[in-house]
Amino acid sequence: MKYFNTVRPQLILDEFRCKRNIQRMTQKATKLKIKLRPHFKTHQSLEIGRWFREEGIKGITVSSVDMASYFASDGWDDITIAFPFYPLQIPALYKLEKKASLRLFVNRIEDLELISKNLHRPFKVILEIDPGFGRSGIHYQNHNLIEDLIQTCDRLDNCSFYGFYTHDGRTYQSTGIDQIRSSIMPVIGILTDLKRSFPQASLLMGDTPSTSVLNDFGPIDELSPGNFVFYDWMQVQIGSCNIDDVALFCSVPVAQVIGDGSAAIVHGGAVHLSKDSLVINGNRCFGQVINYSEKIITVETNSYLSALSQEHGTVNTKQPKLFENETLWICPIHSCLTANLHDHYLTTTGKIIDKRILS
Amino acid sequence: MKYFNTVRPQLILDEFRCKRNIQRMTQKATKLKIKLRPHFKTHQSLEIGRWFREEGIKGITVSSVDMASYFASDGWDDITIAFPFYPLQIPALYKLEKKASLRLFVNRIEDLELISKNLHRPFKVILEIDPGFGRSGIHYQNHNLIEDLIQTCDRLDNCSFYGFYTHDGRTYQSTGIDQIRSSIMPVIGILTDLKRSFPQASLLMGDTPSTSVLNDFGPIDELSPGNFVFYDWMQVQIGSCNIDDVALFCSVPVAQVIGDGSAAIVHGGAVHLSKDSLVINGNRCFGQVINYSEKIITVETNSYLSALSQEHGTVNTKQPKLFENETLWICPIHSCLTANLHDHYLTTTGKIIDKRILS
Repeated sequence: MKYFNTVRPQLILDEFRCKRNIQRMTQKATKLKIKLRPHFKTHQSLEIGRWFREEGIKGITVSSVDMASYFASDGWDDITIAFPFYPLQIPALYKLEKKASLRLFVNRIEDLELISKNLHRPFKVILEIDPGFGRSGIHYQNHNLIEDLIQTCDRLDNCSFYGFYTHDGRTYQSTGIDQIRSSIMPVIGILTDLKRSFPQASLLMGDTPSTSVLNDFGPIDELSPGNFVFYDWMQVQIGSCNIDDVALFCSVPVAQVIGDGSAAIVHGGAVHLSKDSLVINGNRCFGQVINYSEKIITVETNSYLSALSQEHGTVNTKQPKLFENETLWICPIHSCLTANLHDHYLTTTGKIIDKRILS
Repeated sequence: MKYFNTVRPQLILDEFRCKRNIQRMTQKATKLKIKLRPHFKTHQSLEIGRWFREEGIKGITVSSVDMASYFASDGWDDITIAFPFYPLQIPALYKLEKKASLRLFVNRIEDLELISKNLHRPFKVILEIDPGFGRSGIHYQNHNLIEDLIQTCDRLDNCSFYGFYTHDGRTYQSTGIDQIRSSIMPVIGILTDLKRSFPQASLLMGDTPSTSVLNDFGPIDELSPGNFVFYDWMQVQIGSCNIDDVALFCSVPVAQVIGDGSAAIVHGGAVHLSKDSLVINGNRCFGQVINYSEKIITVETNSYLSALSQEHGTVNTKQPKLFENETLWICPIHSCLTANLHDHYLTTTGKIIDKRILS
């Protein structure tokens, strides 16, 4: 199956490459004897979830209670909600615990007590650790709070402490395996140190760059990457994958060639791709034009989305013949945000795969 | 009705302010004897569309054939598709013309002939004029192409030339009425000059900043702004409106206070607000915290979204007490993109209003 035209901007999924990404990650985790609890925020699709199940995945990670409910409706009964708990979630968690056992990120004693009082089934607690980034989680040096939280877990009937989690967002600013490694190693070091003080803790992490390129995660027990299911142009830049591993595209009709043919307006804007961008060789890039075939995906060199408004995109190129195509296929900058904008995937073999939309 | 909490990130619509924005714009157009064909890409809602109908609006503007079909399903029968025609649209246009008379943006003789051959009812042609920005449309000095296109319209049975349209995106980079005026006046001048050569042409334009602040549009016949229905933090910065005119917000639960209380993680990320941002006083801003009441909306000074990931947002503040609230209300940077991410509005009086989602 070769590159095909769509009558409108369309999210395109390569089922073969997506399943290959899933298999590679599950096989790697099996080989390294690390648990894999993939993050489902990237695909948000019951059917793609089932592709993970076919590879033996039993527990998953999501980023909201609503997303947990969506996947619980398809029989997922072991769900980690990787977002700090807040009290307004209680009514939804109360409904959700009937369908799935939950692992929650909690930062405050009073929240632990509130959850314990309002939920009737056992739940596990994961402490998100801030390795000094100043973002979400508990600062790794705040042993007092960590100890208080673990003791509270022990004291409460339906609550047990599971482990420490950290997400190293800095690996997304890396280029190449060496930079990824030098970003993640100190973070793994911090978790390793914490385990010395709290030996009952499992250690969890999950960024796509390091899970894609490392083959040794030290004492880490669980990985929960999400983006690797599709990858994207950002991950190609980082070096997490090759362009031929990317499984998600947006097809955009060519609407008007501009001036001398070095640019064209395409029907593909912020509502189809998201406003995420990268600066590559000094140029702001909102998506990369690719050449697709079943066998190989290649980059259409010097051809990229240079500007986006709501519905319009501007593609720059040095090959004006490119615009003789009726549509172009764009490798998105950030597949999580691009997929989120659509209510279904069209596969390269013509199947429609539904996904969740934001309600 | 005061500010209220929601259990999850939620798009909030102030129906009163939205209707007031609609009334102000329709009354202004009536007073100035200019036609108003509002752009419906901002709200994408049948019910909000009806609020325009109640104010006497009969013709509308949209940015895609799909969006046109959505509104045609609710009886809108005079629709301008403000996006360059491309041949892949033909099957959808063929279905659509049975429900609505169409005004299309066309740039090429062969496209005019293709449409004429494939559509059976009369359609009108609008020529999008590029006033020298190098973006979409026909360069204003390209009189040969303009003349050829108009002559082709005259020659084809079911096709008639309507007028010239231009969208001055530069007014969105302006601050204050003087800058907006100095951006738009040369553009109005270019359209005025064109009308001397092509006196049969109506003149159309439609950016929200100039339609909001100007009271004299010279020889312009039609306006098609969209964003004014809600406004947003970008329009407040430009000076198109006051914060008390904004009708759209996102309520975001506070999830975790960070460090000394000068920041908090909120449940409100790129999937709820979009990645559009502004630099204000040297700080990147993804949304402004506001204080809402029915009577007045005010800005929560120095309190804004400083970072967004998929589901997390970071709010910075100089008033740590702010985070004692269970939720914060955010004025979005760009209401068109924020609204696009959700499948419904919750009004401040508790009504659910459905909207279109991207399929």
